[in-house]
Amino acid sequence: MPRFKLTLEYDGSGFSGWQRQDNGPSIQQAIEDAFFALAADRVSVNGAGRTDAGVHAIGQVAHVDLAKAWDGWRLREAINAHLIDHKIAVVEIEPVSGEFDARHSALSRHYVYRLVNRRPPPTFDRGRVWHMKRALDAGAMHESAQVLIGHHDFSTFRDSQCQAKSPLRTLDRFEVMRDGDEIRFYVGARSFLHRQVRSMVGSLVEVGCGKWRTADLFAALRSADRSRCGPVAPACGLYLQRVEYPKG
Amino acid sequence: MPRFKLTLEYDGSGFSGWQRQDNGPSIQQAIEDAFFALAADRVSVNGAGRTDAGVHAIGQVAHVDLAKAWDGWRLREAINAHLIDHKIAVVEIEPVSGEFDARHSALSRHYVYRLVNRRPPPTFDRGRVWHMKRALDAGAMHESAQVLIGHHDFSTFRDSQCQAKSPLRTLDRFEVMRDGDEIRFYVGARSFLHRQVRSMVGSLVEVGCGKWRTADLFAALRSADRSRCGPVAPACGLYLQRVEYPKG
Repeated sequence: MPRFKLTLEYDGSGFSGWQRQDNGPSIQQAIEDAFFALAADRVSVNGAGRTDAGVHAIGQVAHVDLAKAWDGWRLREAINAHLIDHKIAVVEIEPVSGEFDARHSALSRHYVYRLVNRRPPPTFDRGRVWHMKRALDAGAMHESAQVLIGHHDFSTFRDSQCQAKSPLRTLDRFEVMRDGDEIRFYVGARSFLHRQVRSMVGSLVEVGCGKWRTADLFAALRSADRSRCGPVAPACGLYLQRVEYPKG
Repeated sequence: MPRFKLTLEYDGSGFSGWQRQDNGPSIQQAIEDAFFALAADRVSVNGAGRTDAGVHAIGQVAHVDLAKAWDGWRLREAINAHLIDHKIAVVEIEPVSGEFDARHSALSRHYVYRLVNRRPPPTFDRGRVWHMKRALDAGAMHESAQVLIGHHDFSTFRDSQCQAKSPLRTLDRFEVMRDGDEIRFYVGARSFLHRQVRSMVGSLVEVGCGKWRTADLFAALRSADRSRCGPVAPACGLYLQRVEYPKG
């Protein structure tokens, strides 16, 4: 069966998350339904990352096996036509070998977390950013974030429901930048624990507003104790930005 | 009565436009209602430009006279609290002299028009950009746009309902830039005719897709004939970006 790689964009508001489930609409189900509407093909769409309820994507990747060969361009057009009632778009479709697996072949995942830091509420991005009225020091957050880089036990920043076997992860990138009223947190790693990004962002905000210093963040990390995590940042600010694979 | 200058941001979707009217919700009315809820003050909020139904603003300016003196910071907080059910935010409030008039004191108005030029539909910006699937040449549009700069009779780009006394206007700036999938049109002038920006953008798109050449756009301008205008661009892509006033 021909396999295709899909690059996806979606607004996670109003979805129960990526993964198909009984108690609410999922992104995965919406895309699988679009394939069924198109070709009466009951397919399984396999994502690189299972984004939580309310989390968005600008570069989620998935693979799907179809009954027949399609031209990628025509397939993208047809699937997008079937997805038009949802805020989901297939940005790219390309044929890949049967060895490509969106989840297991991924070399790294990159997220961006968007926070609007001003007194007035957001207008255009309401529900798509974390709104924080209290002034935050982005430079201090960036500096502190660097202690999280590297190979660590991230138990402090791991949701109690996380099903990963090990709490050890290697964080490759953590950049915090202000652009006018908006602060963006860029993180990259081979893989993340459940709610790790939102847990780290929420803890850094404790630094940004002056409650914590870098030493407090480092002590929280070292403790490997979930109760030492700062308040977890809300889902609405988080975007799966891109997933990287071996070239070719 | 103390006068205040308001800088406003709003998502125009779902509004019948800036101006108070009988047949639908207006931005002006929503802000006037917020002042009434705050201080039982029946005020008139006077905008620099009357944005049409569905047109957005990131820097509309208005003035208002209040019964008592307020601290600008506290007033902004209070008004935004009363506006929270709308996608309208007061970004800045400052006290001004009684001579300041948002409309008549304005030196220039600046708009940006956003167009998403790709095959897949927009996700996050649906209803806030013009989506055009057909590939457009932004460089060609920028080049052609320069013939519109200067003092001209803009009758071709003027809505038949326009109430301005004269069709003569001076266009100071017209820049067309591509940023990835998005094309932005930046225009600036002391003032504009009704639907002038959307009429000019729609006509430039005829150039961008190869139907018109610069000479056709120039001939359309010179004709001063409304029937020579290209299809008017939809309201959802237009943003009143900023209004400039004399310093001090």
